[in-house]
Amino acid sequence: MSVKNLLVEAYKQTSYQLVGHGHRTIQMLTDALKDYDDLEESDMYGTGKIIEQFQAKLKECLGKEAAVFFPSGTMAQQIAMRIWCDKTGLKKVAYHPLCHLEIHEEEGLKKLHQIDSVLLANETRIIQLEDIENMEEEVSCILLELPQREIGGELPDYQTLEAISSYCRDKEIKLHLDGARLFEILPYYQKSAKEVCALFDSVYVSFYKGIGGIAGAILAGDEDFIQESIVWKRRHGGDLISLYPYIISADYYFTKRLHKMNQYYEEAKELAKLYNECEAIQTRPLEPVSNMFHVHVAIPKDQLELILITIYKETGIGLTRNMKATSENSCSFEVSIGDQFALVPKTEIKNLFQRLNMKLKEVTP
Amino acid sequence: MSVKNLLVEAYKQTSYQLVGHGHRTIQMLTDALKDYDDLEESDMYGTGKIIEQFQAKLKECLGKEAAVFFPSGTMAQQIAMRIWCDKTGLKKVAYHPLCHLEIHEEEGLKKLHQIDSVLLANETRIIQLEDIENMEEEVSCILLELPQREIGGELPDYQTLEAISSYCRDKEIKLHLDGARLFEILPYYQKSAKEVCALFDSVYVSFYKGIGGIAGAILAGDEDFIQESIVWKRRHGGDLISLYPYIISADYYFTKRLHKMNQYYEEAKELAKLYNECEAIQTRPLEPVSNMFHVHVAIPKDQLELILITIYKETGIGLTRNMKATSENSCSFEVSIGDQFALVPKTEIKNLFQRLNMKLKEVTP
Repeated sequence: MSVKNLLVEAYKQTSYQLVGHGHRTIQMLTDALKDYDDLEESDMYGTGKIIEQFQAKLKECLGKEAAVFFPSGTMAQQIAMRIWCDKTGLKKVAYHPLCHLEIHEEEGLKKLHQIDSVLLANETRIIQLEDIENMEEEVSCILLELPQREIGGELPDYQTLEAISSYCRDKEIKLHLDGARLFEILPYYQKSAKEVCALFDSVYVSFYKGIGGIAGAILAGDEDFIQESIVWKRRHGGDLISLYPYIISADYYFTKRLHKMNQYYEEAKELAKLYNECEAIQTRPLEPVSNMFHVHVAIPKDQLELILITIYKETGIGLTRNMKATSENSCSFEVSIGDQFALVPKTEIKNLFQRLNMKLKEVTP
Repeated sequence: MSVKNLLVEAYKQTSYQLVGHGHRTIQMLTDALKDYDDLEESDMYGTGKIIEQFQAKLKECLGKEAAVFFPSGTMAQQIAMRIWCDKTGLKKVAYHPLCHLEIHEEEGLKKLHQIDSVLLANETRIIQLEDIENMEEEVSCILLELPQREIGGELPDYQTLEAISSYCRDKEIKLHLDGARLFEILPYYQKSAKEVCALFDSVYVSFYKGIGGIAGAILAGDEDFIQESIVWKRRHGGDLISLYPYIISADYYFTKRLHKMNQYYEEAKELAKLYNECEAIQTRPLEPVSNMFHVHVAIPKDQLELILITIYKETGIGLTRNMKATSENSCSFEVSIGDQFALVPKTEIKNLFQRLNMKLKEVTP
């Protein structure tokens, strides 16, 4: 068994975990189904009470003319880009180099839609207004991911967002929000979803990040845009005869967790502080702006894994199941706060970080 | 309320229905979940016990090197076409004019994959070897849909299938099976799924037609083909973090109904005979070759709907909820036999068809 598997195995054996909502088991579905009568009618190709009510709820929440449920964000966002490109006749969009479309979708945007990308900012920082003003090529659409997940979940300040939105409107560039973690950033901005979405022409939100559903996404925008997206959803093979297993769970966990985003945010700040007090550790952002952050550790990955495995066994508390090497002598992992953090006794967390700090001091030159 | 809605409403009020497996309610899902422990781990991006075991089972059943679960057949089949076209460098495939890809997918194949289609045979009959031999254009792949649903579920004889397969191999044309209803035709051919699939390079099967699951499909073929299809699945946005709600229900109803396909086939023949004994009615095929057929009635749609509504009310038995006008003076509807036919008392079916025949005689010139 590789060291990585040992970390996962050790994590699975822990009684408490500081991240996430818990293991992804089918209980996520059976819990969500408990409120429903067995005789409730299935949705059929985008029609029916279950899908229409949820779409109406999210349309209201996001303050857009229309909203449609998609099986995945990958599908929803490629389609949003395609519609905006077709509208202007220019098959080019701009986004961050670590955008989901650029690094996690096997070039679907290019291979299925023949849309080229212009990369804004770079892998070390988020997009600022200047990056857009200085863009040398014309694009149909700019996609902003809030927060920028792959660099730890950083956010521009709200004035920057407003300035970018206003600039794009002036220049007739469509602005799309990758809001996979939109609900998670509202406490930091102290804005409603509707206020943030008003800055964008189209918006995608996910139901299995902070919300913790099984899968699925909502795409929202004006009526024309959404009607077109429904045609593209069929073309992509996403207009399943029934999507209710995802919708029921999305709705259930949305209701259950939307009001907890502030708690997750406060807990993320608390946990990041504990990490930053340790030798050789720095979080990114230093102070989180959502429920997530990255932990960067200046020791080799294998060494940190062995330390964590020991700590998991000694304390019964898991910190992460994943880890990646960022260089020969450094590594990092992602933290997303969910329901589980609050379940762990504070004194045990304190004890854990004392142990971690001690072990890191032993191995740091 | 329109006449069409009245038909649907009257159908919903019936105690028995001669078609299908029953109303699509969320009980389809809760029943399937009953055999599972709540702590069963979710599949994750194509990995995990639930998805891997089901893929292995279907790979065996279809006799192919590899199989992968897709959320929809639309996605699976476009991807199959794309892979075969990319292999030969020729973006053209051939299929029937009433093929799902041609009439139900909003031109996804052309708009997403830039693949052109050559239409074989015509809307009144199925594809024969001669249609392929006489094809004037070169294509990468030929898609055969067995049975050809939109003309009532007709089938070529098995020798024709073998001849087409052999011809395509000689000419190095890939042959793909749209087997949305593959299991439903095995009793007529008296062949195993493996035997039929051996004639094809790639195969798609569905789990919500005769099987009666919630949604989902399997694509099967050789190892290389399936590995490529997994990359395309991600590009299409079909590589959902978890697909288990569909897989669990597909597996449950597959196990429950696979052995009943012969029963459905025999019942379809029995029911078609009853229709054909009525004035102004002819089924297509005259004798079904699967669990499905179309009923063609030589009176106007509105008139037949009124007759059926009366009959549903008098007998408590529903025949169909859908109906389409085929001309000003004729209409048709589709019949697919499932679990429900066997639940209806035979004497009541006989009584129903006597009434139907009487009413049709009254209105037929």
